[in-house]
Amino acid sequence: MPVQNLVEAQASRAASADLSLIEDMESAVRSYCRSTPVVFTRAQGSCIFDERGNRYIDFLCAAGSLNYGHNDPLIKQALIRYLDDDGILQTLDFATAAKARFLQEFRDTILVPRALHYRVQFTGPTGTNCVEAAIKLARKVTGRRAIAAFTNSYHGVSLGALALTGNRAKRSAAGVSLGDTLRLPYDAYFGPEIDTVGLARKLFLDASSGYDAPAAFIVEAVQGEGGLNCARDAWMRALAALAKDLGALLIVDDIQAGCGRCGTFFSFEAMDIHPDIVCLSKSIGGSGLPMALTLIHPKLDVWEPGEHNGTFRGNNLAFVGATAALEYWRDASFQNGIAHRSKLLHDALSRITNGYMRGHATPVGRGLFVGLRFDSPSRSEAFRRGLLVRGVLTETCGPNDEVVKFMPALNIPEDTLCEAVRQIEACAAEMAQ
Amino acid sequence: MPVQNLVEAQASRAASADLSLIEDMESAVRSYCRSTPVVFTRAQGSCIFDERGNRYIDFLCAAGSLNYGHNDPLIKQALIRYLDDDGILQTLDFATAAKARFLQEFRDTILVPRALHYRVQFTGPTGTNCVEAAIKLARKVTGRRAIAAFTNSYHGVSLGALALTGNRAKRSAAGVSLGDTLRLPYDAYFGPEIDTVGLARKLFLDASSGYDAPAAFIVEAVQGEGGLNCARDAWMRALAALAKDLGALLIVDDIQAGCGRCGTFFSFEAMDIHPDIVCLSKSIGGSGLPMALTLIHPKLDVWEPGEHNGTFRGNNLAFVGATAALEYWRDASFQNGIAHRSKLLHDALSRITNGYMRGHATPVGRGLFVGLRFDSPSRSEAFRRGLLVRGVLTETCGPNDEVVKFMPALNIPEDTLCEAVRQIEACAAEMAQ
Amino acid sequence: MPVQNLVEAQASRAASADLSLIEDMESAVRSYCRSTPVVFTRAQGSCIFDERGNRYIDFLCAAGSLNYGHNDPLIKQALIRYLDDDGILQTLDFATAAKARFLQEFRDTILVPRALHYRVQFTGPTGTNCVEAAIKLARKVTGRRAIAAFTNSYHGVSLGALALTGNRAKRSAAGVSLGDTLRLPYDAYFGPEIDTVGLARKLFLDASSGYDAPAAFIVEAVQGEGGLNCARDAWMRALAALAKDLGALLIVDDIQAGCGRCGTFFSFEAMDIHPDIVCLSKSIGGSGLPMALTLIHPKLDVWEPGEHNGTFRGNNLAFVGATAALEYWRDASFQNGIAHRSKLLHDALSRITNGYMRGHATPVGRGLFVGLRFDSPSRSEAFRRGLLVRGVLTETCGPNDEVVKFMPALNIPEDTLCEAVRQIEACAAEMAQ
Amino acid sequence: MPVQNLVEAQASRAASADLSLIEDMESAVRSYCRSTPVVFTRAQGSCIFDERGNRYIDFLCAAGSLNYGHNDPLIKQALIRYLDDDGILQTLDFATAAKARFLQEFRDTILVPRALHYRVQFTGPTGTNCVEAAIKLARKVTGRRAIAAFTNSYHGVSLGALALTGNRAKRSAAGVSLGDTLRLPYDAYFGPEIDTVGLARKLFLDASSGYDAPAAFIVEAVQGEGGLNCARDAWMRALAALAKDLGALLIVDDIQAGCGRCGTFFSFEAMDIHPDIVCLSKSIGGSGLPMALTLIHPKLDVWEPGEHNGTFRGNNLAFVGATAALEYWRDASFQNGIAHRSKLLHDALSRITNGYMRGHATPVGRGLFVGLRFDSPSRSEAFRRGLLVRGVLTETCGPNDEVVKFMPALNIPEDTLCEAVRQIEACAAEMAQ
Repeated sequence: MPVQNLVEAQASRAASADLSLIEDMESAVRSYCRSTPVVFTRAQGSCIFDERGNRYIDFLCAAGSLNYGHNDPLIKQALIRYLDDDGILQTLDFATAAKARFLQEFRDTILVPRALHYRVQFTGPTGTNCVEAAIKLARKVTGRRAIAAFTNSYHGVSLGALALTGNRAKRSAAGVSLGDTLRLPYDAYFGPEIDTVGLARKLFLDASSGYDAPAAFIVEAVQGEGGLNCARDAWMRALAALAKDLGALLIVDDIQAGCGRCGTFFSFEAMDIHPDIVCLSKSIGGSGLPMALTLIHPKLDVWEPGEHNGTFRGNNLAFVGATAALEYWRDASFQNGIAHRSKLLHDALSRITNGYMRGHATPVGRGLFVGLRFDSPSRSEAFRRGLLVRGVLTETCGPNDEVVKFMPALNIPEDTLCEAVRQIEACAAEMAQ
Repeated sequence: MPVQNLVEAQASRAASADLSLIEDMESAVRSYCRSTPVVFTRAQGSCIFDERGNRYIDFLCAAGSLNYGHNDPLIKQALIRYLDDDGILQTLDFATAAKARFLQEFRDTILVPRALHYRVQFTGPTGTNCVEAAIKLARKVTGRRAIAAFTNSYHGVSLGALALTGNRAKRSAAGVSLGDTLRLPYDAYFGPEIDTVGLARKLFLDASSGYDAPAAFIVEAVQGEGGLNCARDAWMRALAALAKDLGALLIVDDIQAGCGRCGTFFSFEAMDIHPDIVCLSKSIGGSGLPMALTLIHPKLDVWEPGEHNGTFRGNNLAFVGATAALEYWRDASFQNGIAHRSKLLHDALSRITNGYMRGHATPVGRGLFVGLRFDSPSRSEAFRRGLLVRGVLTETCGPNDEVVKFMPALNIPEDTLCEAVRQIEACAAEMAQ
Repeated sequence: MPVQNLVEAQASRAASADLSLIEDMESAVRSYCRSTPVVFTRAQGSCIFDERGNRYIDFLCAAGSLNYGHNDPLIKQALIRYLDDDGILQTLDFATAAKARFLQEFRDTILVPRALHYRVQFTGPTGTNCVEAAIKLARKVTGRRAIAAFTNSYHGVSLGALALTGNRAKRSAAGVSLGDTLRLPYDAYFGPEIDTVGLARKLFLDASSGYDAPAAFIVEAVQGEGGLNCARDAWMRALAALAKDLGALLIVDDIQAGCGRCGTFFSFEAMDIHPDIVCLSKSIGGSGLPMALTLIHPKLDVWEPGEHNGTFRGNNLAFVGATAALEYWRDASFQNGIAHRSKLLHDALSRITNGYMRGHATPVGRGLFVGLRFDSPSRSEAFRRGLLVRGVLTETCGPNDEVVKFMPALNIPEDTLCEAVRQIEACAAEMAQ
Repeated sequence: MPVQNLVEAQASRAASADLSLIEDMESAVRSYCRSTPVVFTRAQGSCIFDERGNRYIDFLCAAGSLNYGHNDPLIKQALIRYLDDDGILQTLDFATAAKARFLQEFRDTILVPRALHYRVQFTGPTGTNCVEAAIKLARKVTGRRAIAAFTNSYHGVSLGALALTGNRAKRSAAGVSLGDTLRLPYDAYFGPEIDTVGLARKLFLDASSGYDAPAAFIVEAVQGEGGLNCARDAWMRALAALAKDLGALLIVDDIQAGCGRCGTFFSFEAMDIHPDIVCLSKSIGGSGLPMALTLIHPKLDVWEPGEHNGTFRGNNLAFVGATAALEYWRDASFQNGIAHRSKLLHDALSRITNGYMRGHATPVGRGLFVGLRFDSPSRSEAFRRGLLVRGVLTETCGPNDEVVKFMPALNIPEDTLCEAVRQIEACAAEMAQ
């Protein structure tokens, strides 16, 4: 049975009361639920179940916000215990014991072992909000207005972050001009041999180029939405050096690439750079509850009290989940586990593309932030659908949605990972026919 | 013992390990924790407890995001049950059973009885994000750029919403020009006798005034941060008529004033207006978990799929809490309870100000969204501190923080409310000496 | 013969080869030549002649750029002599003898007798360019971005000045958002009893109004394009005081209202205010040759060399004409002559409106910057056409072109002035039938 | 006597009364008069004279606005005759015989022989104003906001044009963000081997690059202020093709490079491109009187009447000079003369740089729009001063003022040209020692 028909059949079956209600009541802006017309109910670890009991291996992890899988037992028990004890849930930015626990764990388990020095700003619990905070602060510190962002970047859709986002459709939705942004080519954007930081350096040092030194450069070490483009270490170092020379801050947006996704807690750990500001969100909450942080080098923490605020900065239940999740990083075993699974998945993708898809698809990405770049968007979409029918949940990314992205939980059981790999292989084999 | 000393003594005692850790690790942007130097741990109903076991009556409700109080038993049990069952927590905008339940409850319990027709956009779970969505949509629908906002308004601090926010310190933190905004005087801004909508109408109808028809007017029926200014019904109707005449949308920001705070579910229910878009957040989640909605008149729902997105739009635990909370609105008793408590509090404030504070403080606000406007910021701050020492948690608002705001839970037990009133009276009596 | 037919007949006759060529070759943006379809050739004093030899009394003076009439003999001889002598014509901002002569005359004849202290910036020779210079400098001096401008103002159509201009059609032609502008109501905009500077003061002093202190206020003492609205002296003083209190500059745009048009050289001379910056253009060149100045209080002259430049700042032929024209101001007779003509014209307009147009037209304006405000745009246009047929050239102004503007040369011979008045009266009489 | 001392001596001598007056009265923004501290009085052909009778060969021509030299006899006589006849001088955009004459001459002598079809918009008489008109129109035609401009470009300093100008100091003087601009690398900016239009094409075709199709590309065929960078024909054609593919307009800013400066009337005549809009100013007036044109392809002439206006659009004396100047283009001799002088000058510069300045200076430019690019700004400034002392007036350009620019009149007598060349050679010889 061809993939197309399977999906349609499934869609038809899925026309449940819930789906009808959602179509009727939810805005036309809804998106994922269109290409995956099922109603999810439960989830455990790397598996999601829909209302008919079908099981899906989660290779999407809510766009990287479930790096520890669904309802991880330790995290979940911490949440339930906190609720049971009437732990305070919502507190603006009052001091709470739950917040203090998180800060302590984050300092001792994440920052100190990496010799990093940051103060933590709890922003509104969305990635876009911690980016907004980062660029406000960069502008305040430098007294400059422009932020340099890169081709194919994604930093959010509130107006400040949206100006930094590459995607045309997202930006045009603003309905107004998105100013105070300088757009630069990412690593290898014009091919691997053209040094794009070198081009930028020439522009910034030329007093009549039209390019002025920005307040900050904001960059993703791996561009998740942009198609799993990976910046090379040397390029990131060159960028950091350029920022320093220009008196500009370096902001790493680690919202999707951080929290272990690239193999280490921060995506840039092995690059020998020291970002001035780091944005974290998505998986920092541990359980998928909304949370976001802006990490600030202490000497740049020039905020006035309340200068950037928001109601839900004190999402204490997320702090509790976050603290529980960070415990996994107390020794090397968790990081080793990611490395092991990464190798398994990378090897498999190489084997599969070599075997079935030569010329049609290439493995891309880093750590467990990987995928297949297809030579046409129709092929990538067909592949995503094929995997969905086979019970593997993924999404596409890239400028033309030409990349199928694989983001398993970092702690996915090896047999579940292998099961997913077998489905990927089967899907590739079928497409090869 | 004077108030000042009491607070300082408390601050000194409160210099716990947790507070030190927070001062050391959290960004200088933290705010509430400075004026209230205690560490909260537990909370139940209208009472919060700090790490030393002190009890505070919560007259702040996390800036209106805890209208049902802390850890309401029914809501809390729904959350625990959902967690226990491995209910799926984070789902981007996939369809889930939890989301469908919420939509159904919202439609049947809130919209249908009020003869309202809206589609629901789940935005990133912050008030600022649902405002960003609202203004994007207004610009898309009308093809215009400017949004008209009012003096003393507060709509959030991400760049799009920040442009609409009146507060100078918040706006100046942007570091860039905040354009595409028209600022108009709120009801009674120039005194009750000057019809500010009339002034605006003259400006908009004059082809050389420099004022062009905006994409939308965004307004709060009661300005929470702006000092509890209440728009009169006739003014809101005149505004709605002006918007209609200009082909502009009317957006009501009901983030703080909605969800029952003004006595009815929506702040504007009794005003005979039909906003095109309504922004809801804060208490919509029921339990204080982050959640935000943009309600859109169906004929304006012209979004393309994914045109405004964000990771945490699918905070299913918040949906569960929200659904449980909405059940309170199934019959009239909950709303009647608000009316009863409102009357009790309004009467008390009138009595207290007449008795002790004539000329120094005036009761302001509507429903359980009330406060005392003092004749000097130092007096309002002294009053807030006095209440804090007496175990009543409040905050100040208004352009100069000259208003002490009282936002009890809508279901605060009458005896707790009376206890708080007694402390307010005691505080007033002390200040009167 | 009704006015309408006369104009059409004239238009038909005027379809000369030249007019056809212009219609064919000149952009659709052309404007005056449409409502006045004749081809002008010669002009002397207050009279213009078209290619058929028809004579028109010039009550328009090229929108106030010919305050000394056409080809004033003294000015014209100075121009011819300079050309004959191979005087250098174009010199960027090099020093020339012609420029020095002008500066000396301007200092000795204009500034010193009025106890004014300004340095002179020669900008690109257009009014809009000297406004651009003024606001750049105000922004540099204050470090602020917004400029406060008034309803019904006109300051030019290059992008910086255009943002300050009230006219909707002009501004919408920008095609982009015109930011960094605060728009305030002009004197008596909401009726004479509402103190609009008082409203503005309240807005600026309120820290959450959304109005921040601007870099400058830019104002016309009489709004030429805006409909001959005259600011009262007390209002201008209140505005100057507000600017001072806010640390903002006061810019008077005297491009149309200055150079004697209001009865004194500067429009604001009698108001006891001391603008920080004054913009002059139009008649400053004396002969109608392009020239523009920005006058800057010496302590604010913080320009870096070349920071604002432009090729034609050194239009030396205009300097020569300007110097010759300023000689008229060396004693009181010229100003007295304006006063005499003003009285004659004001009295006549009062008489005519009282006699023929009661309720339909009101005299407006100040000095020789006057007109009739009609109760409908169709009536004002009919009146303008009627005058044109009668050989008096005028234009309409105001938000709806409801004002017919009378701007005779300041030195118009009394009999020519009386002749024009008779035509105005005849026109009024005809319309009254 | 070293150059430095000579200049200082001259400066000291030049401290005339006029120069003192100018220093006292003219704004600090004055620029050319600082590096050339003399007072000019008369000029004829290619020679300028200062108040002490010193003669300078004009290799600057008021930044290219005197392509026909000073006081060209035929042009000058036309101006005097027009004045003598009381020709009307200032007419807003009324039809005049002088304007019609110009349009006819421009059509018959310039457009028709080149098979070009443009309508003429007379803008405010500055280059910056015709650029403002061009970009407004491009935005109106396309409904897009951004204009793509190039590194090292110069398009003026009013706010709209300033956003397109590369020079950092000029742009930063704006004091506000200059938005709605896309900045692209000019031909050979990253070296001759990198195809910068190719880079731009990739960016514009990538839906997530952050680069959207602009309203227009604005380009100079030779960048006068930017350092005499010359776009290659193939690059200009590639740019025109890219514009067409994107539905964007191509605007050629021919303000400095046009009117014969590059050897043909338009700089782009030999390039086989058809710009949608062409900006002309500077030498179009013939005599140095202010004038500016925007040439518009007839199908793009969608202006509403008066949508872009300005007082001095009707500078009839400039029209008269312009008409006289265009007569020089009626046959091929004038253009042949430019070619002859160009070859003479190019050959001389090659010889001189090879002989004396190998490695220190390179000839750059096209036609009579040429110069020497030095390897250090101090050397170029020394060279400019050396020439000044030797009686040759030049200026520097380029991002670091590293280019000495030679812009003789297009009709400079051969012996005067040779005299200047001898001084250039002498100066080079001296520097070589």
